[in-house]
Amino acid sequence: MPKKPKRLSPGGHIRLLAPAGIVDLQKVHRTQELLTRDGYTVSQGAHLFATHEIFAGDDQSRAQDLLDALSDPGVDAIFFARGGYGSVRLLPHLDRTDLSVVAPKCLLGYSDITVLHAYFQSRYDWVTFHGPVGESDWLLADTRIALAVLSGMQQSWDAQLEVFNPVLERIVAPWRGGNLTVLTSLVGTPYIPDLAGCVLFLEEVNEAPYRIDRMLRQLLLAGCLSRIQGIVWGEAVSCGPEANGFSVRTVLREVARALGVPCWYGFPAGHGLRNWTIPLGQKLRIDGNQVVVVSA
Amino acid sequence: MPKKPKRLSPGGHIRLLAPAGIVDLQKVHRTQELLTRDGYTVSQGAHLFATHEIFAGDDQSRAQDLLDALSDPGVDAIFFARGGYGSVRLLPHLDRTDLSVVAPKCLLGYSDITVLHAYFQSRYDWVTFHGPVGESDWLLADTRIALAVLSGMQQSWDAQLEVFNPVLERIVAPWRGGNLTVLTSLVGTPYIPDLAGCVLFLEEVNEAPYRIDRMLRQLLLAGCLSRIQGIVWGEAVSCGPEANGFSVRTVLREVARALGVPCWYGFPAGHGLRNWTIPLGQKLRIDGNQVVVVSA
Repeated sequence: MPKKPKRLSPGGHIRLLAPAGIVDLQKVHRTQELLTRDGYTVSQGAHLFATHEIFAGDDQSRAQDLLDALSDPGVDAIFFARGGYGSVRLLPHLDRTDLSVVAPKCLLGYSDITVLHAYFQSRYDWVTFHGPVGESDWLLADTRIALAVLSGMQQSWDAQLEVFNPVLERIVAPWRGGNLTVLTSLVGTPYIPDLAGCVLFLEEVNEAPYRIDRMLRQLLLAGCLSRIQGIVWGEAVSCGPEANGFSVRTVLREVARALGVPCWYGFPAGHGLRNWTIPLGQKLRIDGNQVVVVSA
Repeated sequence: MPKKPKRLSPGGHIRLLAPAGIVDLQKVHRTQELLTRDGYTVSQGAHLFATHEIFAGDDQSRAQDLLDALSDPGVDAIFFARGGYGSVRLLPHLDRTDLSVVAPKCLLGYSDITVLHAYFQSRYDWVTFHGPVGESDWLLADTRIALAVLSGMQQSWDAQLEVFNPVLERIVAPWRGGNLTVLTSLVGTPYIPDLAGCVLFLEEVNEAPYRIDRMLRQLLLAGCLSRIQGIVWGEAVSCGPEANGFSVRTVLREVARALGVPCWYGFPAGHGLRNWTIPLGQKLRIDGNQVVVVSA
């Protein structure tokens, strides 16, 4: 059974952390104000606004901020302030601490944060939350869904989805994944989560269809997809199409057929304006256009 | 001992093949004319000018062209007409034929062709040639070095190289590698060549330093670099730098130090105007600015 963090309600304590790229002070301040106004207690990691090369502080400092937040019993949730690049550089540092004795907390983020979703799923089987970051616009309704999901108020999503290779109408399975580029950058390492029995959730930004094909081929040839139950594709922002209509849809149709699994396309999560929060690692039922949390 | 193809001399038979992207007919015709004028016999793969989506024919056809050329005793060398993307899609097709009984031929190309270098090294321990493709400008002296290397006339290269982490002055080892993005796309699959005891040769185009860092981290975390002897970096075309001077050099310096190996930077091979041909899989000695083939 995956380990679910306790729900985050107003009054709960949110820690803002920067595990990767340098964060925008103004954007994060605005988010902090909005969350505070909503009744949350919001604190900052020690290096939230640090800069080192292209990172929010050196690897050791960013890892320590995350370990501090995880081991602080007063912190209920960790909202990652930004993706960018750099979360993967924390993993060898995180590996030095055994977190199996720590109670899981709500972890929220996407894009480069896919590394941390993968880490806490592969190492500790935690349920984590794929959704906006601290730099996201928290005035948007679709961003504020995060708080409804983390509190347990929202447990279903109705989306307009296309289906490729519809060999199954519904699937009940944990969803794992995140950003395709970031997930694929973990193939061959100890940190790629086990996708057997799962629905693979993916989204992408600024990658041409041929690159998306290359990444899916790597996952395929590495055996990572051999027992997945299905694919849900979120946003594909600035991802082609290329010459001769070769598109993300072309690629997904072919991969779904090769695997003999259905693929739902267009779930509003990822780098678009809409970034609905979903729990990763927890069982969800997808049935037509509806996705519902299946209670344990 | 790696399997070396027999040398290619004028009069030898060169087959032009397109294993990946759609090729430019005029560029390839010009190369064919120049090679013919030099006294070579030049033939074309059946699907050299085919088009399917973004590929030079479907996967099966491109794989068959390669298998046909390999099994034809009249063909001495295979010059790949273009990289682009798509060589990786041939591998499951190639795997259906046992090529261990086939005499190795000179295989020449770079960029996406890195997949085929990796394949013939990991599966059959062939020496293959990292150098220009059929679409390259064969009027350039640096392209025509390919013919001198394939004939055995040229066995050394003098380059102006920077050195990072100079813990060794010289290394005698086989070089393996190619394009970083393409090599990294094989991590976790059966097709990544064993780099233990090797010098890792890399080049890149159009990838930001943070992406180069991400790929090298994947190779590191997957254990692919744990026993390499050194790194030689070729061209880095349109690869940054990024904010705060974070550059390919920054990344390589840190990786070389982490591994405790030297890194030579600036060997003129890859996507720049200069693309010197080097044998991969064969022992080379690198000593200061000089690289020399070590005869078996």
